[in-house]
Amino acid sequence: MTDRYATFAHSGAGRFLVRRLGLPDPPKLRRYEKGAEFGPVALGGDGRLAEPTRQILDKLPISLSTGAEDRCAALIFDASGITGSEGLGSLYEYFHPIVRSLLPSGRLVVLGSPPEMCTSAREATAQRALEGFVRSMGKEVGRGSTAQLVYVAPGAEEATESTLRFLLSGRSAYVSGQVVRIGPAAVDVPDDWDQPLVGKTAIVTGAARGIGAAIARVLAREGAHVVCLDVPAAGEELAEVANEVKGTALQLDLTAEDAPRRLADFIATRHVHADVFVHNAGITRDKTLGRMDEGQWSSVLDVNLCSQERINDVLLAENLLGGNGRIVSVSSVSGIAGNRGQTNYATSKAGVIGLVQATAGAVAEHGLTINAVAPGFIETTMTAAMPMFVREGGRRLNSMSQGGLPVDVAETIAWLAHPASGGVNGNVIRVCGQSLLGA
Amino acid sequence: MTDRYATFAHSGAGRFLVRRLGLPDPPKLRRYEKGAEFGPVALGGDGRLAEPTRQILDKLPISLSTGAEDRCAALIFDASGITGSEGLGSLYEYFHPIVRSLLPSGRLVVLGSPPEMCTSAREATAQRALEGFVRSMGKEVGRGSTAQLVYVAPGAEEATESTLRFLLSGRSAYVSGQVVRIGPAAVDVPDDWDQPLVGKTAIVTGAARGIGAAIARVLAREGAHVVCLDVPAAGEELAEVANEVKGTALQLDLTAEDAPRRLADFIATRHVHADVFVHNAGITRDKTLGRMDEGQWSSVLDVNLCSQERINDVLLAENLLGGNGRIVSVSSVSGIAGNRGQTNYATSKAGVIGLVQATAGAVAEHGLTINAVAPGFIETTMTAAMPMFVREGGRRLNSMSQGGLPVDVAETIAWLAHPASGGVNGNVIRVCGQSLLGA
Repeated sequence: MTDRYATFAHSGAGRFLVRRLGLPDPPKLRRYEKGAEFGPVALGGDGRLAEPTRQILDKLPISLSTGAEDRCAALIFDASGITGSEGLGSLYEYFHPIVRSLLPSGRLVVLGSPPEMCTSAREATAQRALEGFVRSMGKEVGRGSTAQLVYVAPGAEEATESTLRFLLSGRSAYVSGQVVRIGPAAVDVPDDWDQPLVGKTAIVTGAARGIGAAIARVLAREGAHVVCLDVPAAGEELAEVANEVKGTALQLDLTAEDAPRRLADFIATRHVHADVFVHNAGITRDKTLGRMDEGQWSSVLDVNLCSQERINDVLLAENLLGGNGRIVSVSSVSGIAGNRGQTNYATSKAGVIGLVQATAGAVAEHGLTINAVAPGFIETTMTAAMPMFVREGGRRLNSMSQGGLPVDVAETIAWLAHPASGGVNGNVIRVCGQSLLGA
Repeated sequence: MTDRYATFAHSGAGRFLVRRLGLPDPPKLRRYEKGAEFGPVALGGDGRLAEPTRQILDKLPISLSTGAEDRCAALIFDASGITGSEGLGSLYEYFHPIVRSLLPSGRLVVLGSPPEMCTSAREATAQRALEGFVRSMGKEVGRGSTAQLVYVAPGAEEATESTLRFLLSGRSAYVSGQVVRIGPAAVDVPDDWDQPLVGKTAIVTGAARGIGAAIARVLAREGAHVVCLDVPAAGEELAEVANEVKGTALQLDLTAEDAPRRLADFIATRHVHADVFVHNAGITRDKTLGRMDEGQWSSVLDVNLCSQERINDVLLAENLLGGNGRIVSVSSVSGIAGNRGQTNYATSKAGVIGLVQATAGAVAEHGLTINAVAPGFIETTMTAAMPMFVREGGRRLNSMSQGGLPVDVAETIAWLAHPASGGVNGNVIRVCGQSLLGA
């Protein structure tokens, strides 16, 4: 579960050798620390998003750039004013002189308009072009810095705060090269941005270990009462996690026929509703298709996809999510790019993306959201057991030259679960350090 | 321009060493040969697409599998009957027993329904899941075989012939892991499938060399009169290509202010209309953004994106494309995944994707189509000049363990330019051997 190479590369002797031999140089990523100072932040561009963004930045515990500093912690550019490809030069004009001033673990954020909502083809083309710019910048900035593109729908200018806070902070340490879409939605601003989930109940499946346990910890840190759910066989570990987060343990086999019913009864009886539901439980049974037995196929599909559908059905039909409820599903980069030996897993995880996309419209009508995260290479006991070459490939072939941590996935889920993230719906966010792997 | 490693690996001594040392083993890809025999082809599944597909296969110069053969050249599965994730097991049931019977350079094609057009969320989820399956199979099948997913809209069942012919043939040698969408459209069936472009005029920009010259050759082979367009400085090479394909040479700087006007006049005077327009001209000026000068940014944007927009405007406004006209733009995997040192190029190539997506609806109303191809690593003089490690990485990090050839891009464009491809509109098709790189 530790990246020994990164530990070595960060040591005194290691740093020397890494530089002399041109070895991969995984930077130390800035992660969440309560009350951490952040800044200066520079903001440019002159579209419809610049002023609302400035107002949000004014509220944050950060310093705005005066233009006199040598270095910046974040560069934000409002590109929503670009209405044709001839205007794309403003990206160059803004970023060219200052991009090298970005501090390590810096943040580059481009704001734009969703191409599908633009009124002219010329505008849609230029806005779509931003994606190539941001993905290239993610590969250029280096030293743990990230680059993201946020498409803000007309009318959603005030709905971006939770997203900007996430992307600027250390919470998004392992998220880069992503395209986020924000639609207009009533924004439920929390009393305390450090504890936005106070008074809320969150249910996390597969919570006994690894990424699931990290999700439980982060949601509890954010103030939620967390119901930690896992199979009865994981009972002991599950109880430990539940105790640690001062939550509730719930032993349940999600693939059992009566699981949706039992879960619904549990929610209705104990908590009235669940404000946040995180579908994290998942299994792998890797084999090439010709050598895979039927049980390996069907168990992966059933745990990773079908059970999520059955549970969502009962959550929605019986109105078990709160008025501003959140569903977050864990997909995978394998579900996007496909993977040798994982036809079953990739099919299930692509299905999770389909589930999110197919139901986002209907859940929005109830004031809810559904989103997915797609982890790349995350350091867990599962990845620690991989053959060395596969593991090192997965670890290094991304813009951070290192694997992510379970907490990185958890932080991303916490952003999607945030009461102020009502405009973030139907998104699939990769937590992969901008892995080279993709479709 | 030659892949010396592949040449070595295909030699007697090379084959021995490659196997003993576990080196990358680039298979020899089956490419187009007129009248080449093909088969047997197996067809399974029982949705709305099985019968129309069988009728198309009956017309092709191929042998259908009787089920008694040991090996198959292609496995086609109609998954459009899968209406929920529980039904995905039919993929396993069909492919598990036969996938290892696929011959080298074999073809695996899954047919489905576009998720966005499904009537239920359950069906949309399952159809979207197919993508994870096909992309994984593309990485598993090996030995030059490909795997594709074709989403056929309701009502487009008869519009798939040109696509099936392309995907089954050697023309799609370097296309794998792709998702093709086919919509309902009047299909213009050619008299001669070997020469579908007889009587048609095609204009190819950047035709003097590399991929552009290959496009000119393939479109001419398909029967078109090809107008080879390039800058005046490339005049001599341009004339050679034009002579070789018995076409016309047109010297024009596409970025000149009067270029659209001169082009429109040329078409109207000499050819009445252009049935096929291929935007292939493109340049690179690689530098990280901080070191890039303004001219490197703006020239790449202008040649690769803005000039395409200006030309499309005049083509459409003055009705210069024939009644069943085709626009095909060359994008790039860099425009999808981003690339270090290519902010200008990736922005322009992402913009090309935006252009295709933003105008597909409007051009369809005129009976036209617009699509893009996104080449990955293609063996050209440009890639031959890359540093060795970059070149070898690009060459091997894909499901074919080798770079593609210019002809592979050209064949893909010929499919999109085909008179019977009216249902293929707004698609972006990668020609990358299923490169690992992606978004």
